[in-house]
Amino acid sequence: MSLAFNLLNTTESGGRRAQIDLPHQTVETPVFMPVGTAGSVKAVPQDIVESLGAQIILGNTYHLYLRPGHEAIRRMGGLHRFISWPRAMLTDSGGFQVYSLTQLRKVTDEGVRFRSHLDGSSHFFTPEHSMDVQIALGADICMAFDECTEYPADRPRAEESLRLTMAWAHRSLDHFRAHQHEVPWRDEFGGRPQSLFGIVQGGMYHDLRRESAERLVEMNFDGYAIGGLSVGEPRELTLEVIREVLPLLPRDKPRYVMGVGYPDEIEQYARMGVDMMDCVLPTRAARHALLFTSQGRLNIKNKQYAEDQNPPDPACDCMVCRRYSRAYLRHLVQCGEPLAATLNSIHNLAYYLAIMQRVRADLAAAPVTR
Amino acid sequence: MSLAFNLLNTTESGGRRAQIDLPHQTVETPVFMPVGTAGSVKAVPQDIVESLGAQIILGNTYHLYLRPGHEAIRRMGGLHRFISWPRAMLTDSGGFQVYSLTQLRKVTDEGVRFRSHLDGSSHFFTPEHSMDVQIALGADICMAFDECTEYPADRPRAEESLRLTMAWAHRSLDHFRAHQHEVPWRDEFGGRPQSLFGIVQGGMYHDLRRESAERLVEMNFDGYAIGGLSVGEPRELTLEVIREVLPLLPRDKPRYVMGVGYPDEIEQYARMGVDMMDCVLPTRAARHALLFTSQGRLNIKNKQYAEDQNPPDPACDCMVCRRYSRAYLRHLVQCGEPLAATLNSIHNLAYYLAIMQRVRADLAAAPVTR
Repeated sequence: MSLAFNLLNTTESGGRRAQIDLPHQTVETPVFMPVGTAGSVKAVPQDIVESLGAQIILGNTYHLYLRPGHEAIRRMGGLHRFISWPRAMLTDSGGFQVYSLTQLRKVTDEGVRFRSHLDGSSHFFTPEHSMDVQIALGADICMAFDECTEYPADRPRAEESLRLTMAWAHRSLDHFRAHQHEVPWRDEFGGRPQSLFGIVQGGMYHDLRRESAERLVEMNFDGYAIGGLSVGEPRELTLEVIREVLPLLPRDKPRYVMGVGYPDEIEQYARMGVDMMDCVLPTRAARHALLFTSQGRLNIKNKQYAEDQNPPDPACDCMVCRRYSRAYLRHLVQCGEPLAATLNSIHNLAYYLAIMQRVRADLAAAPVTR
Repeated sequence: MSLAFNLLNTTESGGRRAQIDLPHQTVETPVFMPVGTAGSVKAVPQDIVESLGAQIILGNTYHLYLRPGHEAIRRMGGLHRFISWPRAMLTDSGGFQVYSLTQLRKVTDEGVRFRSHLDGSSHFFTPEHSMDVQIALGADICMAFDECTEYPADRPRAEESLRLTMAWAHRSLDHFRAHQHEVPWRDEFGGRPQSLFGIVQGGMYHDLRRESAERLVEMNFDGYAIGGLSVGEPRELTLEVIREVLPLLPRDKPRYVMGVGYPDEIEQYARMGVDMMDCVLPTRAARHALLFTSQGRLNIKNKQYAEDQNPPDPACDCMVCRRYSRAYLRHLVQCGEPLAATLNSIHNLAYYLAIMQRVRADLAAAPVTR
């Protein structure tokens, strides 16, 4: 059994509480997944990521494929062991990074040829290759290889992109199922396989999104993601697509919206019935001195905080807010101290994870509809 | 009472175990002091510095004077509170940084005019001003304002430099004593003052070192440092100066060798009777991927560690060696991940602090001579 999805309750607003039983962790949803691009949630030691309550983190296939290489990670027992992360992990397919990071790429039906952003070397990713890499990494959840449709995309372009994504979804699933015996930790968990999620694309065209969702559901993935969002579209469009697609996805499987979002977004989507989300924002913003707080966004670089002895967020009880002042965090940023990135990231992650915890508590207490 | 020095035992080799009772911490010696230049032991959160067993850390007056400014720190209750460090602290006088960091400086009997390495602005440090800054910062131990004699220095130059250092020692002590009522945490500790250490200079000339030590001892400082070492001289010279000066210093006060050194050096000096040492080496080397281990120095960037699943130091039980492999640390360095600096620094600090702990245990078990 790949994953077991245990739906605990569903509320009138569509929000739902569930548990996703994965080989390395039973994940309580709705869940926010911190991003650990190259095998590290940037600037935060693993024991702190754990203590913040992160249940599942994300690794980027593209980055790990280039460095240190998936075969090296396989030889070292898989990504969990390599980075010493005992809880659940999810890897993306590499498609999005190829789309967003590499200038030189050429898409054919077969796959994507691209140049490494590190050294310009040439690489070819196919659905089969993405599955091989993700199996070697050994995340609990893998993602089908898709083409992320850019925004804006006209209708012919969105149709063509979707055609590719659907063909690749089939090939991903076939190859994934045929190679599950190669998962590095397979024996450790009694032969349990990884899970594979399909990705709904279709640009901002509702009928294409619908077609994408229906065809993926027929393929019987272990879970479903909505991709191609947070690519520059206005937020109302993001919301519309999510609202359109969610009801098309099976009740009894996880629903994951990729790459979102701001604190109010993740809360809103979680209350609508999205089970999983990930975003680099809390850690990336932290490295740019932007803190998310119950009082709004704080640009901690600002002079106004130079002698502000309040905690970053007086309503937050994370290890940063309990110990340090705004003045100290500002000082660290001003001095270019590496500790700035660490403390700012810890707070922002704590803030994101606390939102999900609060939403889970609210959903658990809400009247159950069915 | 500034500090109470409680000598526990002295061994035949001259090594000694003591306790230094300071307002914020009773420090077990011999002790290694991690350097927290700008109010942060670089890349390591304070709770981890504490958990590693650091009893006292060092802050740099020059850096903190420039950013965020000593008056701002005074207004925020002193350096301990500003950076949230509950244990002991020591500040240097700023003299060494003026000597080593600023190109443009002009030394007169009155003091040193220099340009900030940050923005080129002009500043003037006198012994009195250094004391004012250090009192505002409120470290448990302050250092007299000295001129660090460069290496090599010919005899006339070393004599002239020493003349300045001795005159400044008097002025430091007078001003320090007259302004102890301004210490930011004075009420919190029942009016206890800070401690002030004198600094022995004299270049590599033994008679000048002797003269410096004797005259400082007459002034009755709370402790004595040997400065002007680790400035490029061969290591035998460092050792000779320490061996020459130590017996000239009072038995019943702390002896501090500034700015040393490599792991074998700090062990050697501690066994000779040096009570306190500080050095940026463990954290600076860590940021350059150099690890100190029981098996020698490890340049963790090297390709040979790419799939080495051993801990950085198999004999070390620090939180890094218990959790992560050499391969992972190498990967973090290769990827430029900020976590590399953090984990490497934690290990190196743990390694340095473990040396001192072992020396303390050995000294406690050694036959007592008097």
